Amino acid sequence: MKSQNKIYVVGIGPGNREHMSVRAIEAIAEADVIIGYKTYIDLIKDLIVDKEVIDSGMRKEVERCNLTLDYALQGKNVAIISSGDAGVYGMAGIMLEVKYERNSDVEIEVVPGITAASAASAVLGAPMMHDFAVISLSDLLTEWELIKKRLDCAAMGDFIVALYNPKSMGRVHQIEEAREIMMKYKAGSTPVGIVKNAKRQGEQAVITDLEHMLEHDIDMLTVVVIGNAHTYVKDGKMITPRGYQI
Amino acid sequence: MKSQNKIYVVGIGPGNREHMSVRAIEAIAEADVIIGYKTYIDLIKDLIVDKEVIDSGMRKEVERCNLTLDYALQGKNVAIISSGDAGVYGMAGIMLEVKYERNSDVEIEVVPGITAASAASAVLGAPMMHDFAVISLSDLLTEWELIKKRLDCAAMGDFIVALYNPKSMGRVHQIEEAREIMMKYKAGSTPVGIVKNAKRQGEQAVITDLEHMLEHDIDMLTVVVIGNAHTYVKDGKMITPRGYQI
Ligand SMILES: C[S@@+](CC[C@H](N)C(=O)[O-])C[C@H]1O[C@@H](n2cnc3c(N)ncnc32)[C@H](O)[C@@H]1O
Ligand SMILES: C[S@@+](CC[C@H](N)C(=O)[O-])C[C@H]1O[C@@H](n2cnc3c(N)ncnc32)[C@H](O)[C@@H]1O
Repeated sequence: MKSQNKIYVVGIGPGNREHMSVRAIEAIAEADVIIGYKTYIDLIKDLIVDKEVIDSGMRKEVERCNLTLDYALQGKNVAIISSGDAGVYGMAGIMLEVKYERNSDVEIEVVPGITAASAASAVLGAPMMHDFAVISLSDLLTEWELIKKRLDCAAMGDFIVALYNPKSMGRVHQIEEAREIMMKYKAGSTPVGIVKNAKRQGEQAVITDLEHMLEHDIDMLTVVVIGNAHTYVKDGKMITPRGYQI
Repeated sequence: MKSQNKIYVVGIGPGNREHMSVRAIEAIAEADVIIGYKTYIDLIKDLIVDKEVIDSGMRKEVERCNLTLDYALQGKNVAIISSGDAGVYGMAGIMLEVKYERNSDVEIEVVPGITAASAASAVLGAPMMHDFAVISLSDLLTEWELIKKRLDCAAMGDFIVALYNPKSMGRVHQIEEAREIMMKYKAGSTPVGIVKNAKRQGEQAVITDLEHMLEHDIDMLTVVVIGNAHTYVKDGKMITPRGYQI
């Protein structure tokens, strides 16, 4: 049975079907129309049978949400796709904002997913077992000064730090500054995990430390996990102990 | 085909099958033995057919991991269960530590899951669309002074803050102090979402603000999400804008 006229904002997890939730798979099955950034649509194309698919370019987030609402208003069930968790730098917020801006009362279900930090952690071992901060280095929508302040506060509090959007073609110095800020409080020997394409095709992981992290490849498909004062590396795994007596 | 002699540390997400990943379901199917805290085993009992099940009490984490390794050394595939993500205050780290402590070379696969903050966010709307900090208020294994410092740093940096283990029978003043620290930097009108049993049986959610949050029920099945300076409430949803021009 199909429920009518509903928008699903679907977090598909890191990308492979195996890390999608049952609900995410269902939502895609129930949708008449699938809308998303092309890269993400490609990741799930096996699941898309007999549906209208609208893949768009990057940075068209608001346009995509408006289109989603247009289709819903025409009586279609629409799934708009986010990578990872839809609520972490994903489409959930924008979709709700567009709905309210246009005074619509369409039903929106946010389908949560496994966020990149969790996927990367699983690849690295268990680096995020204690309090952590998630920070995006993208200064497209956020002032760099605020991002720097957050980096400073997170390092001062000895949080484990997961950096999203760490580096792109047009954004290269941010990761350098981020590292410098970390070094104000964290030792150069603090373990750092760099995971590209965590838990999907093309996965690459390296464990290094704050001192040497910039010698490794970092791009926009990468998440960078910086340990706290107790994080250590053993047999190629990065572990932050929670404090249990083993 | 069964791979032999493997340990899966499985994050089952918030609890209901629909928010488990395909890989988590597979891992449970492949295991001969399932080990976990009783409450979590109960959540997945439909999935457990013809297997040895060992459910244990709370606070037996290290014992559970030792038992898991014992079974694996006997040639069994074992799944040890975490709620949410296995790598966020879950079993992944302890399991790896026990493995190394005992000099074992057993294969361990960490299966990531949807963490409570993501599940709670989906229920509340989209409160965690920007940089956030996850902090546990449990001072069983962490000094309260350090937790307070982290609360302070997170509030100072205007992070969205997700509080895990916010309150239990024996831990009541921590959430009060946490709120006071938040109030040093965040307005009393800052939206706060309190979600009990997010995305599973018994779900209850309330949206309030820092000023009034203590008037509501908070317990150890609850996650508390405190907004940043831009978080707002609209039509019963809690939204943190990312900064897009809608
Ligand atoms: C716009 S954010 C979207 C985050 C997503 N909603 C989530 O919860 O994972 C994009 C950033 O997420 C990170 N990311 C997403 N998926 C990833 C993966 N599978 N491996 C590594 N990083 C990933 C990268 O840092 C990337 O620049
Ligand atoms: C020991 S921690 C385990 C966290 C788990 N590994 C995760 O990633 O969600 C237990 C705390 O997680 C939070 N929690 C876990 N599942 C929850 C749910 N479905 N709803 C609300 N809070 C939850 C509560 O704050 C609880 O006290």
